Amino acid sequence: MRLKVKLMKWSAGIPVVTLLEKTADKIGVHSGDRISVNTENTSKGEMSAVVNTIGKYIRHDEALASSSLMKRFGLRAGQTIEINLAELSKSLFIIKKKLAGSALNFKEINQIIKDIVGNDLSEAEIALFISAMSSKGMTEKETIFLIKAILNNGEKLKFREKLVVDKHSIGGIPGNRTTPIVIAICTSLGLIMPKTSSRAITSAAGTADTIETLAKVDFSMKQLKKIVDKTGGCLVWGGGLGMVPADSKIIRIEKKLNIDPEAQLLASIISKKLAVGSKYILIDIPYGKTAKVNYLKAKKLRRKFISLANKLGLHIQVVLTRAKEPIGNGIGPALEMMDVLDVLDPNKSGPADLSEKSIYLSGKILEMTGKAKKGEGINIAAETLSSGKAFDKFKEIIKAQEGKIVQLEFGKFKKNILSKRTGKVRLMDNKKINALARNAGCPVDKMAGVYLHVHLGDRVKKGDKLATVYAESKSRLNMAIKFYRDFDGIKVR
Amino acid sequence: MRLKVKLMKWSAGIPVVTLLEKTADKIGVHSGDRISVNTENTSKGEMSAVVNTIGKYIRHDEALASSSLMKRFGLRAGQTIEINLAELSKSLFIIKKKLAGSALNFKEINQIIKDIVGNDLSEAEIALFISAMSSKGMTEKETIFLIKAILNNGEKLKFREKLVVDKHSIGGIPGNRTTPIVIAICTSLGLIMPKTSSRAITSAAGTADTIETLAKVDFSMKQLKKIVDKTGGCLVWGGGLGMVPADSKIIRIEKKLNIDPEAQLLASIISKKLAVGSKYILIDIPYGKTAKVNYLKAKKLRRKFISLANKLGLHIQVVLTRAKEPIGNGIGPALEMMDVLDVLDPNKSGPADLSEKSIYLSGKILEMTGKAKKGEGINIAAETLSSGKAFDKFKEIIKAQEGKIVQLEFGKFKKNILSKRTGKVRLMDNKKINALARNAGCPVDKMAGVYLHVHLGDRVKKGDKLATVYAESKSRLNMAIKFYRDFDGIKVR
Repeated sequence: MRLKVKLMKWSAGIPVVTLLEKTADKIGVHSGDRISVNTENTSKGEMSAVVNTIGKYIRHDEALASSSLMKRFGLRAGQTIEINLAELSKSLFIIKKKLAGSALNFKEINQIIKDIVGNDLSEAEIALFISAMSSKGMTEKETIFLIKAILNNGEKLKFREKLVVDKHSIGGIPGNRTTPIVIAICTSLGLIMPKTSSRAITSAAGTADTIETLAKVDFSMKQLKKIVDKTGGCLVWGGGLGMVPADSKIIRIEKKLNIDPEAQLLASIISKKLAVGSKYILIDIPYGKTAKVNYLKAKKLRRKFISLANKLGLHIQVVLTRAKEPIGNGIGPALEMMDVLDVLDPNKSGPADLSEKSIYLSGKILEMTGKAKKGEGINIAAETLSSGKAFDKFKEIIKAQEGKIVQLEFGKFKKNILSKRTGKVRLMDNKKINALARNAGCPVDKMAGVYLHVHLGDRVKKGDKLATVYAESKSRLNMAIKFYRDFDGIKVR
Repeated sequence: MRLKVKLMKWSAGIPVVTLLEKTADKIGVHSGDRISVNTENTSKGEMSAVVNTIGKYIRHDEALASSSLMKRFGLRAGQTIEINLAELSKSLFIIKKKLAGSALNFKEINQIIKDIVGNDLSEAEIALFISAMSSKGMTEKETIFLIKAILNNGEKLKFREKLVVDKHSIGGIPGNRTTPIVIAICTSLGLIMPKTSSRAITSAAGTADTIETLAKVDFSMKQLKKIVDKTGGCLVWGGGLGMVPADSKIIRIEKKLNIDPEAQLLASIISKKLAVGSKYILIDIPYGKTAKVNYLKAKKLRRKFISLANKLGLHIQVVLTRAKEPIGNGIGPALEMMDVLDVLDPNKSGPADLSEKSIYLSGKILEMTGKAKKGEGINIAAETLSSGKAFDKFKEIIKAQEGKIVQLEFGKFKKNILSKRTGKVRLMDNKKINALARNAGCPVDKMAGVYLHVHLGDRVKKGDKLATVYAESKSRLNMAIKFYRDFDGIKVR
């Protein structure tokens, strides 16, 4: 079908052809479907694009072409393009091979990853790939192919220094915000830590959301390099870098499906470390009843991380940490940042559990990189923290990320949750406390969240405050109040 | 996050919130993700919506809300809405139960179908459902639940007449356009046939595309009823009716994945027949090496159709037809319509194979509905066709669908495919001939396609015409020529 081109001034990131709804109906395509586009000048070949539909504004024989199409074909307004249904992508056949139980080779996995990055696979097709990885599993060989394919279809950083280190905690534990503290301690001792983090999707806050309460987190690869060259570390949002775009896209769909195939989890973490040039990696796997994994699974995961890292020439250490309850007092971006600042500032006393865990992880890193002798890592880390050296480094990084340390304000609307009985705190449910914070507006509302007044084992009286819920608006607070009416995430008995 | 509402004058069919790309990045959502929306007036509750992103035109603290949102919350421009990440849908847990191998009950299947219709499941989630049905299979009980759920979440038609009949051919055979002829024969003998058809997605033409070369095919349920009440039959596009919306949405994703789980295939066909009130159904399953199914699979499918129909109180007959090559001469919407008209018009002689198959299928329908005695169906059908009675009825239906019989013109650009040797035609590959027609522009270009000059077993000399390719533009013709350079879909030996 030939259509007259209308100019579209904005870029959609991917090639998009916007059609009148009726035109789309006529050829049997819907918003989000892929079509093939070409022009009378066949030497310019074909290009695949995504359909968008609109109810008005263009005529039935017109199409709005996004800037990448205009550029590719050298289009001017009024010229014609030809569109047709896109043929099935080659990757789809490979995905179905995996779904049927066959192992894939590097070429095949690379084709899938290439098509994901090139927007040649739809959400539905990527979902099928995730479903195949999840139901059929991936061999270690396939996982390595996946890591190499993700790196192959992305950008890499290189640092002159040898001691480039990374740290990763498996998510799921509210308040487990050790990263900013560990980065501050270790980089103040000369290690290079180009740390990229994610935003929260199913939790109340990600490290990126937390840092964003003080500084910018959205940088380009070039800017990241500059920040790290200057300060030794950074705390930026990985999604904005376009570093491993395949991984970002797969994770986005995984979150929708709430499926996290092990191979992709391993590949996602390791590929990001390799992309920033890390040679040393510390992985923290919190385990427990209301954590992402139990002890057995955590041990299995550790074995796989170690084996993979060895094959890829990486120094790795994997620690399993017990996670029966949230860490620190604040849950939510600003509330967690407050805990982090209280731990970093030698003039304040932050939550002991957050401080201890951060020191423990830092000690491990210092020992594995030779910055501390065996058994002395924890002492050196604790000293660096209490001397204020780590806090100074943290301020330096925040400044390099165009921010500064400010007094954080929490949501204007608040409500206390009181204990209904006298007794001991017997349960702090990670998942339910997380859900409460989300109902209050986290992670989108940065000043919202939950402040915990108690921890496991504490004795409380009837009427004592267990937690305070903060929200940025009355309606959000009401939603949280409605949610916690049947809330049994903190149990006193 | 609170955003100021900007008015959006057009409806997207589903609730949409358009955000500035940077705003979307900041909260970690992408185009196509679901978010929850509410206002300060909490009594109005929450509504889930789909995110759209835009690069310019709105500010970072603004959102364009589609008309359904404006209506639901009684919004005016300048008011604020609150958005947050949407929680996982309930259906997702049910889908994952199926993926783990459990059978689902009616309530569960109905929840999934309800969420599909209500746009509460994303493409990725629907893909997971399809993948689960495909990999784990569905029991007959589940298939019946699926049919009932699809009907439950759609619209139904009722006719006063008792002899409401439907006919369905499993696709995949180019030129197999018996439907218009069968409908014309049977309705001219007093049967009621409210026939809905699909558009081509992976083939060169669907019945709806073919009819559209002469008449409108996009009607509402009300209009369909009117056409059938007047003429006894119709030949409309099922997708435009909104009759079984769940089915349309599932099929759309299935086509993307090129997966067609048997349960959904059965449910899709039977639910559409039930929705238009059919009591009698004839199913045609073409089988063969380059058809969708082989003989064994066809027999298995027949058994399942019969068992299902019996449990649903439907009269059914399933015929297996051999399909070693395309039917008729024309492949593509207009080219196939030409064959249909030549068969219907008693003054012309259309392709014998198309005529014979249409008569055979019509005979079966006449016998199962008692319009002909056993063994006499074929004779009556043939007579109705040769007398011109069927053609008159066809013209009546076309007129009721706001069309008329015209001389069809094919694509202006054409190219003959000549035989490279003298011999017998040994192979006519359904799939490859279909691909050739699609390269020429089918199904979007209605006047494009392939005209076959030979059939299996024909003797040809070197240089004889095997087929003619028609295209609507030079560039499309060139694509087809490029494709058929290595074309071995017609083999002479």
